[in-house]
Amino acid sequence: MQTSLLSHINTPEDLRQLSKAQLPQLAAEIRRFIIDIVATKEGHLGASLGVVELSIALHYFFNTPEDLLVWDVGHQAYVHKILTGRKTVFHTNRQFNGISGFPKRNESVFDTFGVGHSSTSISAALGMAIASQLDKKPSKNHIAIIGDASIASGMAFEGLNHAGVTNTNLWVILNDNAIGIDPSVGALKEYLVKAEIGKKPRQSNIIEALNFHYVGPVDGHDFTALFETFKNLSTIKGPKFIHVVTKKGKGLKQAEENQVVYHAPGKFDKHTGELVLKNEHNLPPKFQDVFGLSLVELAKKNKNIIGITPAMPTGSSLKFMMDEFPERAFDVGIAEQHAVTLAAGLATQNKIVFCAIYSTFLQRAYDQIIHDVALQKLPVIFCIDRAGLVGEDGATHHGVFDIAYLRCIPNLIIAAPANELALRNLLYTASLGLKQPIAIRYPRGRGKITDWKKPFQKLDIGRGNIIKHGKSIAIISVGTMCNQALEAIDNCNNPAEIALYNLGFVKPLDKTLLKKIFSQHKTIITLEDGVLSGGAGEAILVFAQQNNFTVKFIHLGIPDTFIEQGKTDELYESLEISANKIKLKLNKLLNKL
Amino acid sequence: MQTSLLSHINTPEDLRQLSKAQLPQLAAEIRRFIIDIVATKEGHLGASLGVVELSIALHYFFNTPEDLLVWDVGHQAYVHKILTGRKTVFHTNRQFNGISGFPKRNESVFDTFGVGHSSTSISAALGMAIASQLDKKPSKNHIAIIGDASIASGMAFEGLNHAGVTNTNLWVILNDNAIGIDPSVGALKEYLVKAEIGKKPRQSNIIEALNFHYVGPVDGHDFTALFETFKNLSTIKGPKFIHVVTKKGKGLKQAEENQVVYHAPGKFDKHTGELVLKNEHNLPPKFQDVFGLSLVELAKKNKNIIGITPAMPTGSSLKFMMDEFPERAFDVGIAEQHAVTLAAGLATQNKIVFCAIYSTFLQRAYDQIIHDVALQKLPVIFCIDRAGLVGEDGATHHGVFDIAYLRCIPNLIIAAPANELALRNLLYTASLGLKQPIAIRYPRGRGKITDWKKPFQKLDIGRGNIIKHGKSIAIISVGTMCNQALEAIDNCNNPAEIALYNLGFVKPLDKTLLKKIFSQHKTIITLEDGVLSGGAGEAILVFAQQNNFTVKFIHLGIPDTFIEQGKTDELYESLEISANKIKLKLNKLLNKL
Repeated sequence: MQTSLLSHINTPEDLRQLSKAQLPQLAAEIRRFIIDIVATKEGHLGASLGVVELSIALHYFFNTPEDLLVWDVGHQAYVHKILTGRKTVFHTNRQFNGISGFPKRNESVFDTFGVGHSSTSISAALGMAIASQLDKKPSKNHIAIIGDASIASGMAFEGLNHAGVTNTNLWVILNDNAIGIDPSVGALKEYLVKAEIGKKPRQSNIIEALNFHYVGPVDGHDFTALFETFKNLSTIKGPKFIHVVTKKGKGLKQAEENQVVYHAPGKFDKHTGELVLKNEHNLPPKFQDVFGLSLVELAKKNKNIIGITPAMPTGSSLKFMMDEFPERAFDVGIAEQHAVTLAAGLATQNKIVFCAIYSTFLQRAYDQIIHDVALQKLPVIFCIDRAGLVGEDGATHHGVFDIAYLRCIPNLIIAAPANELALRNLLYTASLGLKQPIAIRYPRGRGKITDWKKPFQKLDIGRGNIIKHGKSIAIISVGTMCNQALEAIDNCNNPAEIALYNLGFVKPLDKTLLKKIFSQHKTIITLEDGVLSGGAGEAILVFAQQNNFTVKFIHLGIPDTFIEQGKTDELYESLEISANKIKLKLNKLLNKL
Repeated sequence: MQTSLLSHINTPEDLRQLSKAQLPQLAAEIRRFIIDIVATKEGHLGASLGVVELSIALHYFFNTPEDLLVWDVGHQAYVHKILTGRKTVFHTNRQFNGISGFPKRNESVFDTFGVGHSSTSISAALGMAIASQLDKKPSKNHIAIIGDASIASGMAFEGLNHAGVTNTNLWVILNDNAIGIDPSVGALKEYLVKAEIGKKPRQSNIIEALNFHYVGPVDGHDFTALFETFKNLSTIKGPKFIHVVTKKGKGLKQAEENQVVYHAPGKFDKHTGELVLKNEHNLPPKFQDVFGLSLVELAKKNKNIIGITPAMPTGSSLKFMMDEFPERAFDVGIAEQHAVTLAAGLATQNKIVFCAIYSTFLQRAYDQIIHDVALQKLPVIFCIDRAGLVGEDGATHHGVFDIAYLRCIPNLIIAAPANELALRNLLYTASLGLKQPIAIRYPRGRGKITDWKKPFQKLDIGRGNIIKHGKSIAIISVGTMCNQALEAIDNCNNPAEIALYNLGFVKPLDKTLLKKIFSQHKTIITLEDGVLSGGAGEAILVFAQQNNFTVKFIHLGIPDTFIEQGKTDELYESLEISANKIKLKLNKLLNKL
């Protein structure tokens, strides 16, 4: 290899010292750098490999950070991070106390807007562009870089629709690689794939109809074409749109060929690209697979069962049903609002609809849950994956608000299964037909029960259960947090004093069980992996107060602050809800007995 | 007038007995019927007058209720209600225990989907259409009727984008009258207005690009044209789109000429159309005007102040600022998600952004509040109008969830001003520059203070205050509910025993004040016009429990059920949070002292 260029580059200013002829070499070096680090440290690989040239070109051509780049979602921003002062800490990417896997305002002045959820970039960049217009800075550029999966989301359309009637210096760069995490879907995507590089898509151009100056498609791996396009558009006033075609995973054969797996491939061989196979034999299942595989079993028995996911077929494991019953399982793209109301529409026609969605993304459909589902008492089954702390994706992705924001909605059942079997049986119970909607929340990752494919059993809605008897102190745990609690009890100084109950349902509460608990114990510890404000612990406290129990409460859960990234265990420890920290608390309480 | 046709029509079956030649007469009778009733009973006038022919044509041509009509928002569904069995109860429209102002599933089999918030119809109808496809009913029609303001919302785009890749029997009828409540905005609207009846809009047709079979524009007041279009499209497979042009307020001169006022004109003369002028001299101001007028005062002093509303310029009174500072005040259309992230983008550039939005519609931007504003601690100022019970709009529009869904968000201040002056001073305080976002919630309608244009005063964030001293019982009230409390105290058997405190801020709580209250009173009544689950009362209880106060709590507020329509006073009474009902509770408590 030639002399390293990357070793001399710490800022975009350094980058701009290079000649254009040197940029392809730099691109190769950056690809190597990313592959080498992500191969061992893990992270999002494919998206960033696809935008190496585009990222270099943007920082080379535009005057960052004075010109403002907004990366949509941010999975693709590794190159940007490496070029903007974070090369030497890039190996801490997504780790506890390391740099975030997404652009983040308090990490760098080059990160103009914190991202993580999709389709926010156009609105944010338009806000910045309007500010510059008011501040009489017409030559300042505001550039949203958005993928083809993200631009199909309603929020992006809202941004385009507003931008089209402004005269702002807004650039929207469509990074079209025909894939989000899973392949893109929808009519807009079908429209986009008809475009060939150098030819405008058909006569009818949606983007031009929205008043944008459209150019494209442009080859996103061709520096010359990119610079020419940037230059030509620089003289145009008003909103500009460049349709750039890139290849996700570019430069690593396996990543190009298997784009879904190499979106975030885990560890792999940095030379061959081969995945480092983990020995997953005999491990307990992932909760998402308990959902996905159980749903297929249920769908086989009942043809009225429907599955819906907004752009998470692989992540939610709805993929299993999509493969087996393609006509009854739908990936609707990044369209959470539509997904929920579509489910409601299906439910009016007596379909039994399982809507699989991550906790953090369900925030996008909050009004639809209230207004289109709960108000009409339509029995949609929300399968809320990634509830609780999700680990390395960090603050934008933790599913910690769901209990609080769902608990206030009338007519909605909220279930938090303690293990794989409970999840499986909840799915079965819901499939038998409820008279109201239900939200079933379960965490990212694996459970504890290897032998989980047991015959289905119908559960009583609103019923909790005792896990372990004990004399003085009772822990009431939500969902899989019973694992932390049980380990804490086992290791504390006097396990016989501590009882453990599984709440089972946050709503309705198991009033009979709670009254029994309050009668038999003086100190109650509530334990949940959601926010304390408005959470299950509060609901239990209110019930105790209403019924004149004067037990002492200790509420464990997520405090009123955003939680950064890290391994789930590290986060539990820092938030004092790990088995270890709970054990220490128990010992303190036991000392006072 | 000729013999009445309407008197013989109670169902669409009756309607279909008429000849086509009779339909114009029926249309005239229905217009008269609506005008006569709405003139005295009040309601939404303009939208329904605009779709008289379209509504008749749909029920005449299609086989309702077997074919499914989904009315977007539903302001325009009065004709539909009159034709589907609710003619004789139409005079109870929007009243307590009367029929709803919107389509509602439990009111009629013809109301296939409950609506109220915009842009849900395409998703819901698509869900129904997919269900019919699975059930092998290819000739069943599913028809979403959506306005030009609603179709510009992102959610509608998500529905179109999905529908375009299905082969369902879905009809989308665009009711294009160029206005929502206020005139429509955005690039899509500019595109639509270029269309002339009989001519397709330009070469480039957005809708065709999304795979719909497009026809239009069609004159929505021309029965012959409508029937011909329906018939021609009936043989087409897959999603169909009819662009219908109508006139809002059609048939009442004033309503046609002043479409914003006659959207919901209040009482008017049924013959002349003249508004019944209320004597509003010396009345206290509407809270929305305190917001709108104070904002203009502040904007005059500080050029960094920006105003944003998603499609509520008149309702929120942001109109005042839009008139005075058009370059700094934006109506972004029905695009709540975009509105909030646009505000965030502006805030990154040091703009002081007031985002005016109704409580119930803010549910649409929940993720953006968390992810784009609060997580980044951007000091956006949410001015949440229509918080609490809104009256006649009913269950879809009450702003009762906001405290519960906002309280769990870190970094967010939540203020609930007790009166006009507090609102005014909160706006001023926020305009001085906060280091974090704030949500200021205030109710629909008028306050109590006529002389409200006092000099601005800076408030302490997180500070409550005492309104009235008292010995044993303390009421802690949220926002304007102190009016109910004060009246209750004045009329109870022993006012000297009852203290009244204004919470001021739901977050952060005034810990010093609360500790004082808990020390001095044995019984605490919390009073709020939001849901009890997760509400302010719970927050106060948790604080008491954490600080080992064992006072007795009584929580008054909205129970865990959806609340129907009615005058606010009627609703307060039925929910036992009226001055009268609170007084009765106080007397009971006083008896036990």
